[in-house]
Amino acid sequence: MALVTLTTDFGLQDGYVGTMKGVMAGIAPDLAFIDITHDIRPQDLRGAAYVLWTALPYFPGDAVHLVVVDPGVGTSRHAIASQTSWGVLVGPDNGVFSYVWDVVPAELTVALENPDYQRPVVSSTFHGRDVFSPAAAHIAAGVPLREFGPEVSHPVRMSSPGMSMEERRIRGEVLYIDRFGNVITSIGRLVWEGTLLHLDPVFAKGESRTLNARRVRVLAGGRDLGPIVRTYGEVSSGDALVMVGSEGLLEIAINQGHAARALALDLGDMVEIAVA
Amino acid sequence: MALVTLTTDFGLQDGYVGTMKGVMAGIAPDLAFIDITHDIRPQDLRGAAYVLWTALPYFPGDAVHLVVVDPGVGTSRHAIASQTSWGVLVGPDNGVFSYVWDVVPAELTVALENPDYQRPVVSSTFHGRDVFSPAAAHIAAGVPLREFGPEVSHPVRMSSPGMSMEERRIRGEVLYIDRFGNVITSIGRLVWEGTLLHLDPVFAKGESRTLNARRVRVLAGGRDLGPIVRTYGEVSSGDALVMVGSEGLLEIAINQGHAARALALDLGDMVEIAVA
Amino acid sequence: MALVTLTTDFGLQDGYVGTMKGVMAGIAPDLAFIDITHDIRPQDLRGAAYVLWTALPYFPGDAVHLVVVDPGVGTSRHAIASQTSWGVLVGPDNGVFSYVWDVVPAELTVALENPDYQRPVVSSTFHGRDVFSPAAAHIAAGVPLREFGPEVSHPVRMSSPGMSMEERRIRGEVLYIDRFGNVITSIGRLVWEGTLLHLDPVFAKGESRTLNARRVRVLAGGRDLGPIVRTYGEVSSGDALVMVGSEGLLEIAINQGHAARALALDLGDMVEIAVA
Repeated sequence: MALVTLTTDFGLQDGYVGTMKGVMAGIAPDLAFIDITHDIRPQDLRGAAYVLWTALPYFPGDAVHLVVVDPGVGTSRHAIASQTSWGVLVGPDNGVFSYVWDVVPAELTVALENPDYQRPVVSSTFHGRDVFSPAAAHIAAGVPLREFGPEVSHPVRMSSPGMSMEERRIRGEVLYIDRFGNVITSIGRLVWEGTLLHLDPVFAKGESRTLNARRVRVLAGGRDLGPIVRTYGEVSSGDALVMVGSEGLLEIAINQGHAARALALDLGDMVEIAVA
Repeated sequence: MALVTLTTDFGLQDGYVGTMKGVMAGIAPDLAFIDITHDIRPQDLRGAAYVLWTALPYFPGDAVHLVVVDPGVGTSRHAIASQTSWGVLVGPDNGVFSYVWDVVPAELTVALENPDYQRPVVSSTFHGRDVFSPAAAHIAAGVPLREFGPEVSHPVRMSSPGMSMEERRIRGEVLYIDRFGNVITSIGRLVWEGTLLHLDPVFAKGESRTLNARRVRVLAGGRDLGPIVRTYGEVSSGDALVMVGSEGLLEIAINQGHAARALALDLGDMVEIAVA
Repeated sequence: MALVTLTTDFGLQDGYVGTMKGVMAGIAPDLAFIDITHDIRPQDLRGAAYVLWTALPYFPGDAVHLVVVDPGVGTSRHAIASQTSWGVLVGPDNGVFSYVWDVVPAELTVALENPDYQRPVVSSTFHGRDVFSPAAAHIAAGVPLREFGPEVSHPVRMSSPGMSMEERRIRGEVLYIDRFGNVITSIGRLVWEGTLLHLDPVFAKGESRTLNARRVRVLAGGRDLGPIVRTYGEVSSGDALVMVGSEGLLEIAINQGHAARALALDLGDMVEIAVA
């Protein structure tokens, strides 16, 4: 049973996502579908890129990952499929796979041009149904990537999230805000080692470093948020805290609260670790 | 692996949808489920009818389509199953399948009365769990429709969406508003042919016509929305446009905006093409 | 095909739920997943306990039920798996399974401590991915519970919902408010028998009773809501009514309206049946 995951900004209110699965089930009846999310903010490529970067390493390496966040639908942007060690990525050529490719480089990327693997009529507004879903189903059913179209040597790339390391300062940015209001930053990957934090830069060139967790301060939105703690329980309900999130990224939270709102933090805002 | 799709107004907050799938998995362990949507507006039969009409043609013809939008639950309305070339429709006899039947007539419709294919206790409020889900699972498992109950010769029909064609005027109505605020009308099915638009009426009797896309004006909500364009890119961000949607229906959108709100358009409002 | 259900407060906006399914698909490729809900109010253990109590009896008895509503993640609370006749429950040891255990006692409950059945690195914030999902997948694949860790003799229990029966008065509380605003109380299980209601107490010790439905009054929020009716249709649109819900619990609704809001009823509020 081949596995196809879906990530879109379509929401679940209309029939769009179900329709895509119907198209795929018609091509390959034994597919299993897993929804990653359909609530990417409309046309938010960076949010989608982040979610893919966090979720894909946990899937079997032979999965097909269908992504439709596609502000350029109906223009001349390519549709692509890209083989990586995390599976085959299928979606628009708009950079949405950039953070994944930062970790697992594309082995082969092709343009989805072969009409044999598209719906007979391709609308100008719903390539999710007419181009990407048929491609994902055929790939999951074993059609080789070369069958779909010519190689794309330089697919569109977005810049990586900002992160810089100086002697006494590590700077990053707000990368994602989740449903709970937790503010996830580009500073990481961090791993606890007793009272120390090992930092293995994931979004920047730079050597690994070890920080004394109690002797650093985290600054964001004009506030000093204190040192890095291990669990929510170390602060009172309603207080802000900085911790290491489930991906090893520095994360700003409020115990029982919504950090992004309370601290007025938004995507792209600077976050800084000051090393004492 | 037989396929059952689900369309309801239950939302995903409570356990209702999961419970229905549990009932079905208990009857036929190998079923595959695809959610079309559970966010039909509560008791909005026309919204459900539209979503089914758009989604069902993309599914395998042997699927079972379970629909629970059921304002009349607990009253004497029938529960029905209806064989069509788009699969078997299962749901309340309240007209929700009307737009589907407009395209693929019912070959046989039966009342779901046989208690062998219902839960042992049937509640008065949750026929989705007690009547419709068991029926859908048994049908998907191969039980013939005639086993469920007597034929229903005249299931409830809703009127089709309004559309009329005169010499220099084509009138329709707002049929659906999607999550993005796009306003989908009953005027179609439209297919681009170079600079011309071919109109093959789907919701009205009438002959096919060919329109010069640049020489028509679209009027809605007291405004002239200009000619019909091919892509969002033809207008500036924030501007209104009229295009052909993914179903071939005339659609009013705002580039990067929410057309229904900005233009104060609601379900049933008149939309008109004036032919120069 | 083994079945795993999922119940969380993660929402569907982020990639958390998809990631958990990815982990499970990597361990046991043939699993089928059914979402019960991911919209439990954040950290609402009683809401989750209620949803599980309503949904689980409708699933096959060999299902694995994965539940992640986990205010104590990162603290020393146990992770557990618990064998019952409704399937194996997997989740935090915080009482979320209490209402289920009220009906189907735990046959064996173990702590999930064996690192062979966890992700190699266990984060302090996402045990859903690192501890509970691997356990659920391995259990569904046939690993015996004893392999996971030592028995937990006294898992955390929440008190049962309040319900008391006196000669002329039956008192309960608001147990759950669903998406439609229907107010579900702890008074039940009620079954109609002609004009009589048979009450078989589910949340309280006490003998079964039979009530004349027309001779009782239901009181809630300082109002007399009248007798118990059988269907919505017995009151006008906009009027309040009291009926027997799909679980046999006394339920307060407004025909075409949102009862919780209109009657200012909240979780835990007292509801009373006065017997004439």
